[in-house]
Amino acid sequence: MDQFDLQGIVAATFTPMKANGDVNLSLIGKYVTYLVENHGVTSIFVNGTTGEGESLSVAERKKLLEAWLSAGRDRLKHVIVNIGCSSITDCKELAKHAEQVGASAVAITTPSYFRPSTPDALVDFIQAVSLEAGSLPIIYYHIPVLSHLPFLASTILEAIGDKIPNFTGFKFSDMNLFDASLCMHKPGKRCSLYYGCDEQLLPGMLMGAQAAIGRFPSKNVYRPSAKQGDRMVLKFTRSPQSCLLWFESPTQL
Amino acid sequence: MDQFDLQGIVAATFTPMKANGDVNLSLIGKYVTYLVENHGVTSIFVNGTTGEGESLSVAERKKLLEAWLSAGRDRLKHVIVNIGCSSITDCKELAKHAEQVGASAVAITTPSYFRPSTPDALVDFIQAVSLEAGSLPIIYYHIPVLSHLPFLASTILEAIGDKIPNFTGFKFSDMNLFDASLCMHKPGKRCSLYYGCDEQLLPGMLMGAQAAIGRFPSKNVYRPSAKQGDRMVLKFTRSPQSCLLWFESPTQL
Amino acid sequence: MDQFDLQGIVAATFTPMKANGDVNLSLIGKYVTYLVENHGVTSIFVNGTTGEGESLSVAERKKLLEAWLSAGRDRLKHVIVNIGCSSITDCKELAKHAEQVGASAVAITTPSYFRPSTPDALVDFIQAVSLEAGSLPIIYYHIPVLSHLPFLASTILEAIGDKIPNFTGFKFSDMNLFDASLCMHKPGKRCSLYYGCDEQLLPGMLMGAQAAIGRFPSKNVYRPSAKQGDRMVLKFTRSPQSCLLWFESPTQL
Amino acid sequence: MDQFDLQGIVAATFTPMKANGDVNLSLIGKYVTYLVENHGVTSIFVNGTTGEGESLSVAERKKLLEAWLSAGRDRLKHVIVNIGCSSITDCKELAKHAEQVGASAVAITTPSYFRPSTPDALVDFIQAVSLEAGSLPIIYYHIPVLSHLPFLASTILEAIGDKIPNFTGFKFSDMNLFDASLCMHKPGKRCSLYYGCDEQLLPGMLMGAQAAIGRFPSKNVYRPSAKQGDRMVLKFTRSPQSCLLWFESPTQL
Repeated sequence: MDQFDLQGIVAATFTPMKANGDVNLSLIGKYVTYLVENHGVTSIFVNGTTGEGESLSVAERKKLLEAWLSAGRDRLKHVIVNIGCSSITDCKELAKHAEQVGASAVAITTPSYFRPSTPDALVDFIQAVSLEAGSLPIIYYHIPVLSHLPFLASTILEAIGDKIPNFTGFKFSDMNLFDASLCMHKPGKRCSLYYGCDEQLLPGMLMGAQAAIGRFPSKNVYRPSAKQGDRMVLKFTRSPQSCLLWFESPTQL
Repeated sequence: MDQFDLQGIVAATFTPMKANGDVNLSLIGKYVTYLVENHGVTSIFVNGTTGEGESLSVAERKKLLEAWLSAGRDRLKHVIVNIGCSSITDCKELAKHAEQVGASAVAITTPSYFRPSTPDALVDFIQAVSLEAGSLPIIYYHIPVLSHLPFLASTILEAIGDKIPNFTGFKFSDMNLFDASLCMHKPGKRCSLYYGCDEQLLPGMLMGAQAAIGRFPSKNVYRPSAKQGDRMVLKFTRSPQSCLLWFESPTQL
Repeated sequence: MDQFDLQGIVAATFTPMKANGDVNLSLIGKYVTYLVENHGVTSIFVNGTTGEGESLSVAERKKLLEAWLSAGRDRLKHVIVNIGCSSITDCKELAKHAEQVGASAVAITTPSYFRPSTPDALVDFIQAVSLEAGSLPIIYYHIPVLSHLPFLASTILEAIGDKIPNFTGFKFSDMNLFDASLCMHKPGKRCSLYYGCDEQLLPGMLMGAQAAIGRFPSKNVYRPSAKQGDRMVLKFTRSPQSCLLWFESPTQL
Repeated sequence: MDQFDLQGIVAATFTPMKANGDVNLSLIGKYVTYLVENHGVTSIFVNGTTGEGESLSVAERKKLLEAWLSAGRDRLKHVIVNIGCSSITDCKELAKHAEQVGASAVAITTPSYFRPSTPDALVDFIQAVSLEAGSLPIIYYHIPVLSHLPFLASTILEAIGDKIPNFTGFKFSDMNLFDASLCMHKPGKRCSLYYGCDEQLLPGMLMGAQAAIGRFPSKNVYRPSAKQGDRMVLKFTRSPQSCLLWFESPTQL
């Protein structure tokens, strides 16, 4: 997993569906073209909250990942897949599948019916599932507004310790930026932050997130168009001024 | 569904598992014997919270229901199965399966990751799933402490209206007994209550619940042994005194 | 405080106000007459939630208590006063005043802006305030829906231990009747329960509450008229049947 | 109130107390010297959360405000006082007093025991209190983590409309920076933001807050020393780069 270096804007993709609710795989090729050619976005996050992954069956989630990987071959850099669900049996199966078909990384949410009652119980779950993902990087998908877990990400990071060798960081979908900064500045530990609250993307980047994972396309006026955004974020990691100049007067970019 | 008349103590069954977490179907025959012969309990609630249904895969849930039905043939009166899960695809499949293999009724929890944001959205979900359950009675499994839904059962009942023809009542796992009584006494509507908080079973019965669905066996000291309990509850519906006498001085029964 | 034995229905009184929000002391004499003569209610709970005590100034709360005591002389048996507020300075002053003017007992809510973060911190607060109340019985007013304290009453009782010599019990305004029963049945300790959820009064009594403190008058259909209710509760402590017979067919009483 | 233009770092002051909990006014002169001379901080926020205002009596709060005003004469630019408390009677009295003794502005929290159930009910409360504050600027103190109000600041702003002529903005103590930005960019309305989460001060400023109100002194490592901070914030409003350069390499400033 040493080559996994997620940067800039990552598209959390919607799942195309037919009127009857069936998954519509035939649109995925076009979706990739739209992301790559119209917006310069080359990394995606599949079956996440935007993609309604937890509403789908295991078979549907597998087919979707395969379709994205196939349509994105030679065009997409990173295809991350959310494998979180309430059933640990299903979660393990999705982890194994993700590695077999060549995903770039897996993201894991917590079970939402039987929620872990302690940070250690959560880590036990992530650990058990990550064992099925082979050498793939493991991202914990921190989204308390939906998971209802009351633990801070920095507390979870502490509980993870060295228990999950391939742990790479958080998809951090919470507004507590102080907690975010505690994760990134923990001494002797590298933990990447992929920020997930579209509405306050810029503050998240300011605090040090190295990528933004947000729904795409988005009508959110606070979200720059992807091309600008991607450039913005990449620049930002080297030179904060350009980012803020852009924020102050976007027309000057 | 006119013959569905659940009364008395209903055992919410645990799911036997092996040390590695696999489901252990071989113990189910013994479990039925224990319930029926040792305790006189003849109705069960399978794959519920006690049975960790939402942690299992669809295939495991199906196998379990089939095993309980098979072991319970000619011995159990009602086998109710919880089909709730976060994936609507899975939920529909479990509803269809429940009818095909001969369950007595289905209970449905709400999706716990993407929770319905209004009572109407919840009813849309229950309705869509119940269409797959044929003529089976439909029970809504009201358990706000785990579902995190903020709606009262009486509000949900109002939203159901006539939209779910086979709706029969609530597995009511909440401590708000006023809400419970509002459900049971709604004019022009019959809604059964199967009470689910073991720790305050007697008050739930006092308010009018016609059955208690609780984990069995249970170490809970407030829970009478099933034989006493069953008699207690049946008696209670006709003569409250016996129930309370028992509560006051259990040795006199 | 050994003679403090609260039983039956206790009226949580409204505070009469003028159109401009000023307290209207002139109606209190009539209110006492209404309670005692029309309904046989001889114990009251002043400046509680029903009485909007926490919206009033210290001076208003003192005047109200004095007016109730004066109007109730020789007519009321127990006048309990809620002294809870966010300011510990005010709370102590109200405790001292309650003793000086002859209240029967004080009830204390927790500060609601700076909430105690542990049960022990809560007990420290109750203890500090109770020291000002002389020999008056101390009631902790447990109302999590307004106090937002996440601790169970049974946990608070454990933390109280022997730290508050005059502690007599809880005004218990929560629906968790299992928690209620744990308080009453703690070995080696007598803790009275004065139940405060009007809507499920009967279950609260069934679990062992020795009095009900509820708003009076009340439009709540589940609340019997005070005369019936008082008799009901008194009877209940000796013979549960009469209580339930009443509940089943109130006209037979 | 046209001359009220709060900028930069505003010290939320602690309340000096004696070992027995009594207010210690004798330290306030020194405290002002510390703020003004050691740190260049010339605006303060008195009796707020840091100052434990809601734990004090009305008399104590008045004496404290008077002591701060007296010690700060000719040295402090703005002395803002929090008058929020659960009693509307007390709140009005504190508003009137604030104007009489010459505070710069009043901040109002919501009652925390009887919380307003709608944004309009909250506005009714603020309006009634603000009528007593004469021409003083009115700040709503938005701190959902303590007030337990579920309304967004942007929703409250909408409900305020034109009902509170002297309304000037929010002390915004919440991490939802998207909500913050909605308040500041509402068309046709000027609403200042005084940011109150010390731990994410910089993002708050980035989003457009014109002042930061935070406890002072503070051990928070994310909080620059006041002198730097003040300069930082003032500079920031004109040139964002300097602020961020500072953040990246504080030693270069």
